[in-house]
Amino acid sequence: MHIVTPAITSYMTELLPQRHPVLLRMEERARENGFPIIGPLVGTWLSQLARLTGARRIMELGSGFGYSALWFADVLGSDAEIICTDGDADNRRYAEDAFSEVGVRPRITFHTGDALRLFADTPGDFDLIFCDIDKHEYPDAYRAAFPRLRAGGVLVFDNALWSGRMLEGDESADTRGVEEVNRLAFGDAACHASHVPIRDGLLVCTARGE
Amino acid sequence: MHIVTPAITSYMTELLPQRHPVLLRMEERARENGFPIIGPLVGTWLSQLARLTGARRIMELGSGFGYSALWFADVLGSDAEIICTDGDADNRRYAEDAFSEVGVRPRITFHTGDALRLFADTPGDFDLIFCDIDKHEYPDAYRAAFPRLRAGGVLVFDNALWSGRMLEGDESADTRGVEEVNRLAFGDAACHASHVPIRDGLLVCTARGE
Repeated sequence: MHIVTPAITSYMTELLPQRHPVLLRMEERARENGFPIIGPLVGTWLSQLARLTGARRIMELGSGFGYSALWFADVLGSDAEIICTDGDADNRRYAEDAFSEVGVRPRITFHTGDALRLFADTPGDFDLIFCDIDKHEYPDAYRAAFPRLRAGGVLVFDNALWSGRMLEGDESADTRGVEEVNRLAFGDAACHASHVPIRDGLLVCTARGE
Repeated sequence: MHIVTPAITSYMTELLPQRHPVLLRMEERARENGFPIIGPLVGTWLSQLARLTGARRIMELGSGFGYSALWFADVLGSDAEIICTDGDADNRRYAEDAFSEVGVRPRITFHTGDALRLFADTPGDFDLIFCDIDKHEYPDAYRAAFPRLRAGGVLVFDNALWSGRMLEGDESADTRGVEEVNRLAFGDAACHASHVPIRDGLLVCTARGE
């Protein structure tokens, strides 16, 4: 199931300004290998969000080969810090080469291992946490990450509308994870939640009150 | 043309928490009179945006009978200021009664007349400008409003995907206005633009650089 009508997605995509050759190369690599990345529409929106919130410290749960981190690094100043996590050391090596090529490697740290465990071992709070790990882990990620937002911070889950699988009777652990994180966020009186239906849908969580 | 698949819009809507009875009554009134309002999905997203950016001064170009202003007032503190504009004095009277009933009238000013003229006559800059006037006026609104954002501010246009009319050969002045404002924003090197495809689509504009 498409989230957005394909002709509209094409219209939105054609309006995007030119992007860095390294981002384009990563998009080509993702296409060739069938590797899931957030793509340029989500990248554009997500980096705008980082800019709008004045994010200085960003945590990524599930970084793949560094595509989303590069969108963040592009808009943040040299005083910003981005912490990446991914289970695959090859992804880390590829990402670090790309970060060096773009000149943003000093502001990005990339850890290999289980994202939620690495997150638990990383001290401090965050302005922006972007979660794109296995979907059955989303409820645990919500419970771990939402309390670690700084004032004015934002927690974002990718694939929160999950191609509409939750509307088609799919009862896999991943689909149940997506359903549960949506219920958790929208049912949490401490959370102001919204969906941004770009590509596969984003769940955006901010704290109510100051 | 739908922007988002209707089943997905229903899923998103069902997750929304309960809202104020005055908002519900306004939604009923909009349905009965065929009056266009942003609806609860855009309201939820827009008020989250106001919260995220810490908006203190908001300008609305085209306020209808006050539905969107009420979403803003709900999340902003009593030190915030919302300036509404609409061409219809009946809308102002209805809106002001609703603002009083919710207890937010002191923080909202409502001017009747031409929105762009009223905007030109209102001094100062804004943290958030929300534009929902006639679509053929959108390019002029962009040129007038974008330079009047405070640092970290955001300019939002409703109906920026315009039911896909621009993909169906519609050459009305309104459709050309939507096409042109999208080209202006995405083509402006000073602007970081994105589309948020909720309901009829939002165009979100923030300044690049500090």
